[in-house]
Amino acid sequence: MTKRLRDALAEARAGGRPVLNGWMMTPEPAVLEAMAAHGWDCVTLDLQHGQIDLTQARTLARTASGLGVPLLARPAWNDVAMISRLLDDGFEGIICPMINSAKDARRLAAAAHYAPRGERSFGPVRARLAFGADYWKETSDSLLILAMIETREALAALPEILAVDGISGVYVGPADLSLTLIGQPTGEPSDPTVIAAVDDIRKTVQQAGRFAAVHNLTVDHTAKMAGNGWNMVTGPSDIALLAGASADAVRRLKGK
Amino acid sequence: MTKRLRDALAEARAGGRPVLNGWMMTPEPAVLEAMAAHGWDCVTLDLQHGQIDLTQARTLARTASGLGVPLLARPAWNDVAMISRLLDDGFEGIICPMINSAKDARRLAAAAHYAPRGERSFGPVRARLAFGADYWKETSDSLLILAMIETREALAALPEILAVDGISGVYVGPADLSLTLIGQPTGEPSDPTVIAAVDDIRKTVQQAGRFAAVHNLTVDHTAKMAGNGWNMVTGPSDIALLAGASADAVRRLKGK
Amino acid sequence: MTKRLRDALAEARAGGRPVLNGWMMTPEPAVLEAMAAHGWDCVTLDLQHGQIDLTQARTLARTASGLGVPLLARPAWNDVAMISRLLDDGFEGIICPMINSAKDARRLAAAAHYAPRGERSFGPVRARLAFGADYWKETSDSLLILAMIETREALAALPEILAVDGISGVYVGPADLSLTLIGQPTGEPSDPTVIAAVDDIRKTVQQAGRFAAVHNLTVDHTAKMAGNGWNMVTGPSDIALLAGASADAVRRLKGK
Amino acid sequence: MTKRLRDALAEARAGGRPVLNGWMMTPEPAVLEAMAAHGWDCVTLDLQHGQIDLTQARTLARTASGLGVPLLARPAWNDVAMISRLLDDGFEGIICPMINSAKDARRLAAAAHYAPRGERSFGPVRARLAFGADYWKETSDSLLILAMIETREALAALPEILAVDGISGVYVGPADLSLTLIGQPTGEPSDPTVIAAVDDIRKTVQQAGRFAAVHNLTVDHTAKMAGNGWNMVTGPSDIALLAGASADAVRRLKGK
Amino acid sequence: MTKRLRDALAEARAGGRPVLNGWMMTPEPAVLEAMAAHGWDCVTLDLQHGQIDLTQARTLARTASGLGVPLLARPAWNDVAMISRLLDDGFEGIICPMINSAKDARRLAAAAHYAPRGERSFGPVRARLAFGADYWKETSDSLLILAMIETREALAALPEILAVDGISGVYVGPADLSLTLIGQPTGEPSDPTVIAAVDDIRKTVQQAGRFAAVHNLTVDHTAKMAGNGWNMVTGPSDIALLAGASADAVRRLKGK
Amino acid sequence: MTKRLRDALAEARAGGRPVLNGWMMTPEPAVLEAMAAHGWDCVTLDLQHGQIDLTQARTLARTASGLGVPLLARPAWNDVAMISRLLDDGFEGIICPMINSAKDARRLAAAAHYAPRGERSFGPVRARLAFGADYWKETSDSLLILAMIETREALAALPEILAVDGISGVYVGPADLSLTLIGQPTGEPSDPTVIAAVDDIRKTVQQAGRFAAVHNLTVDHTAKMAGNGWNMVTGPSDIALLAGASADAVRRLKGK
Repeated sequence: MTKRLRDALAEARAGGRPVLNGWMMTPEPAVLEAMAAHGWDCVTLDLQHGQIDLTQARTLARTASGLGVPLLARPAWNDVAMISRLLDDGFEGIICPMINSAKDARRLAAAAHYAPRGERSFGPVRARLAFGADYWKETSDSLLILAMIETREALAALPEILAVDGISGVYVGPADLSLTLIGQPTGEPSDPTVIAAVDDIRKTVQQAGRFAAVHNLTVDHTAKMAGNGWNMVTGPSDIALLAGASADAVRRLKGK
Repeated sequence: MTKRLRDALAEARAGGRPVLNGWMMTPEPAVLEAMAAHGWDCVTLDLQHGQIDLTQARTLARTASGLGVPLLARPAWNDVAMISRLLDDGFEGIICPMINSAKDARRLAAAAHYAPRGERSFGPVRARLAFGADYWKETSDSLLILAMIETREALAALPEILAVDGISGVYVGPADLSLTLIGQPTGEPSDPTVIAAVDDIRKTVQQAGRFAAVHNLTVDHTAKMAGNGWNMVTGPSDIALLAGASADAVRRLKGK
Repeated sequence: MTKRLRDALAEARAGGRPVLNGWMMTPEPAVLEAMAAHGWDCVTLDLQHGQIDLTQARTLARTASGLGVPLLARPAWNDVAMISRLLDDGFEGIICPMINSAKDARRLAAAAHYAPRGERSFGPVRARLAFGADYWKETSDSLLILAMIETREALAALPEILAVDGISGVYVGPADLSLTLIGQPTGEPSDPTVIAAVDDIRKTVQQAGRFAAVHNLTVDHTAKMAGNGWNMVTGPSDIALLAGASADAVRRLKGK
Repeated sequence: MTKRLRDALAEARAGGRPVLNGWMMTPEPAVLEAMAAHGWDCVTLDLQHGQIDLTQARTLARTASGLGVPLLARPAWNDVAMISRLLDDGFEGIICPMINSAKDARRLAAAAHYAPRGERSFGPVRARLAFGADYWKETSDSLLILAMIETREALAALPEILAVDGISGVYVGPADLSLTLIGQPTGEPSDPTVIAAVDDIRKTVQQAGRFAAVHNLTVDHTAKMAGNGWNMVTGPSDIALLAGASADAVRRLKGK
Repeated sequence: MTKRLRDALAEARAGGRPVLNGWMMTPEPAVLEAMAAHGWDCVTLDLQHGQIDLTQARTLARTASGLGVPLLARPAWNDVAMISRLLDDGFEGIICPMINSAKDARRLAAAAHYAPRGERSFGPVRARLAFGADYWKETSDSLLILAMIETREALAALPEILAVDGISGVYVGPADLSLTLIGQPTGEPSDPTVIAAVDDIRKTVQQAGRFAAVHNLTVDHTAKMAGNGWNMVTGPSDIALLAGASADAVRRLKGK
Repeated sequence: MTKRLRDALAEARAGGRPVLNGWMMTPEPAVLEAMAAHGWDCVTLDLQHGQIDLTQARTLARTASGLGVPLLARPAWNDVAMISRLLDDGFEGIICPMINSAKDARRLAAAAHYAPRGERSFGPVRARLAFGADYWKETSDSLLILAMIETREALAALPEILAVDGISGVYVGPADLSLTLIGQPTGEPSDPTVIAAVDDIRKTVQQAGRFAAVHNLTVDHTAKMAGNGWNMVTGPSDIALLAGASADAVRRLKGK
């Protein structure tokens, strides 16, 4: 893990400023270059609902090395082959969707760690280039492995999920959680039931000594969550930032 | 030419609202999708200082058809092969860099128009798909062909450039113009000499009955030029919009 | 779902003209442009035996939006991550290979539908662009989800497969079915056993009130199946159409 | 040059069957695989009005080696860099657009041949792999270098063009020729003036002992030209073949 | 299967020279061209720890056809969709990672073979082009399907794995095996326990009449294994060969 | 310019160790990663006879930033658009083919430098990211602009070429030079005439106070030239290094 991310994580765990996580939906290196200059502690590539495939993710990992920005990835699924390739390419953390049970969490942990902790196959080609020959020894302690909690089933299984060795913490996906709880895919919850459920997750996670992160859509909501005690908050995605700025520009130019 | 662009051009020529031109540096279709929703009258792909090649430009042209947004292109150079392929792919206008003489302008006009007006080779594969079998007949009147005026030499040759048949107007590139006039590549001029030179170009062009467009870097300056009588103003590029929004987000989240 | 596909499906369900489905093996947008002009009600991209990956499928989805042609996809497998990304990109239906049991069918249905009907994760980026903000509400009723019946095992399980909520109907793959029934991979069956099995599937499906579709290799066989009461018939693939036309051209030019 | 193309050229020069040239607009290797099986003597990749760039052309050259089909290329322009890269990649001939004067022809010849005949820079990486270490010695005699005659100006300069050392013959582009002669871009001329001009070119070329080739759009017209004494005739493009077959299929399936 | 690979396998099975297997980590066709000239009996593309995706693998398969070099592939995982697409594209063998049980082996065999032996879905588009219309009949006997033995669990299950119909033999991955046996990922084992375990695998495999192959990192170790009775030995990867040669060159040029 | 290259150039100019220049023909980032670890002072991407296009060159430039290795480029031709884009992407030097006259050299210098020294258009997007906001001011002094001397004509014009402002020195291409001098494209000259001509160029260049560089194919010849007083020597290309190592490996494994 890069010093930059390690330091940010340490501060966040110590109750200091939460990790500010940028979010990227598009596979374009120039977009990463545009976002990397502004102080996000790390940037996560979204291979699930974003439009990035594994080959493009590797190109972005190479770009990030030149920019000095740590990268995490959200794989499309809890898939050992995909997670393995992301880690081989030097991603410093995984935000894995749809961890609904301890079994799902064990599968994720097995994919992320080498034996005896897990079952990751050996061959960290780019990771070794980026982090040195001893990379394989360090990874057990230094990868950020976050389980996405985003269903009613996952809520119920949360304590067992947190008990799985090799999981650093959880990442809450409010839209899917809201969909299963109240039938509405609200990315930034306004319903009291969902708001309470999300905050309960944070408390449970932190009481278990794990890392609590949450997804957001707007700067306002990100700032609010940052103030609510989360260890990591994700800001608006590249596309959301761009679309917002483009809409503002046209509005002003049309005098509205 | 699409009705949307034709209408916007007509209004601008009649002294109404200037054409609002979006500017795209990256080859990513999702970026175009993000920008297309917000009312730019057209979007220009930058193949000169941007990072878009001809094959990517074609993919973006296909994306734009689905979004209903008219596309212009700035080719890397006054190159007949490149201009020809852009027009074959259905681009509705060309903003051609470094037109420094009437000879340069005639070369551009020849590349853009079919005989007898020019020397464009026949084979408008995607353009025919987008605009119909009679596309080749219409192009002489309906393509927007803008010559970039961006050197001291071009300033001197402006009247002859404007006299070339097949050139719709000019597009001012202030950074290069400023570099040759005062030795500073200022994208939004503050030096009185450059400011005067830029506005003189607009007047000369409009007095000749041609179309006057200008490049900008910020919304503020774009708005100012829109108020100064230009027929078309370009807003901040995709990368500038994104970088600005990303910087704002981090600043707010860090409480600065 | 687009009106064009909805209308074609409605007519086919009412016993009118069957849906004419084009079939595409190659990832080339120009090939889609060539096929889109000729009145196929929809075109299916083959990500199983064709040569199209997810990133290329998205490019084709963008191309199709400009052409106004509805797209379906055959994923490489009954894989939740792949199906999810195809639907996020705006595909209007899924033809899923190797549905051999009710369990397989439930897995497919879960991947295709949002809670409470299924378990699809929320994030329909391009789909929302194409179909509007309420896209997620409509999908349960409007996606065409077809289970491929292509093994002896699937034949036996057909009634239970049809009983799974969220499956629109079945798509028969005669080559694989023929391989398991008589040991010959015949794409257009001539063996009475296979012919009878295929038609029995159609009857069972339609008696259950579901949608019955069938794969073909030649125009002649497609026309025959269209006359046999199927709700949807697939025509020759892009590659088959091209290879046939190329062979014909050379034969005529060589005077044979 | 491959034996297959050399033999076909020899027969055509001796007045036997003309060379049958397939024409490819798309960069998709599967399309080349579909066309390669049917006996075209060679296939030309169109980098001018087709949608193939240099990198894609190299991929197609590698594909063609496996299929045993000789490839020619039409570069986007009479551009030394582009022609050089195509030849380095093992293309066996060049069909160069817009050769309107002896000067244009000398430029083409210089690009195609090594010193002392021309000025081609040395570095035939793939060509040496395909044709052996002595490739550079053979090329002067064995490349097929065709100058496109497609303007009124070129008609007038034809004798001087034919006199240029290193030009194998001419390739007539009727659409552009028709555009400059009668103001209509007719790909298969019906106007007597154009028909006569085209045939006059053939006679002049063959009387000068050079190779005469002609572009066509349909099988019927290709067959007609094959009967008129041309040394090489081009058949319908991949896209034309596919679009025709797709239209036929839908027509038959709709019972029209 | 190509004659070249069949002959090499036959000689190796008869106790003659082992099959020399090249190993490729990068997706670049020019790299394959550079390696193909030197007498490797086959080359394996690494889609697990290498940087090759399925679309790139197909491009390399097309390149290999032109070079006459047989290709194997190591898929990213024991994944039916990925194995199926590799075989459809004409790969002549599969080296499948992490076969730890008879169940894993049966899954692999099912993916590789058509019914009744397995469950491979029919549609061998490129394979049919490369190997003829009867390709599907031959595959049961002619594909080289190797199960990777690389964990303690796999060691224990080896006899049952070897008993699975449709598995040609095993491929030992010493790094992962070493990691699970002694906690060190040593690609070329020096620890006696691992050395003995690796050689025991070879004996067990060969006594069962199956094919025994082993991965290596250096030429020295490959040569040693070739002398130890293995049926197939893999040489240093493309990247290892290049990095070694580059390091040697700089060392000599700096006079060290 | 990076400190690493600036220091290497300074030492070479002072008569110390010549700059060791790696040479890359393929567009694969993993190949650059393999070469970058071993102490080449810089690596040149070959866009002329290599297989790298502008878009791939940009990806390699991003990769190189992460590796800390300075990049030069050989464009396909003395083409202002191509040179401009390479410099905008942050390449630190240009090795331009076929500079045969002072006019050619002035064209190259104009493309490489901003006004008033040259005519480079302003827009150094990635270069500014890599080298800071003042990049444009520094480039006149810090870019390495080398003119390739590779024809008899260029030999004669050498003094005038060296007198052109903005040219840092020359790069000798022995294959093309040999072809025009003695009719043989010998990459490492053995003919006394060519050997003498090559060394005369070096002396003339260095007497004019300019930088003298030479192309080589083998380590032996590179070492020899390094000892002969050249300021920069190019080693074997990536493909030559790999092919050599692959041939050696197979030879040893076959016991030859």
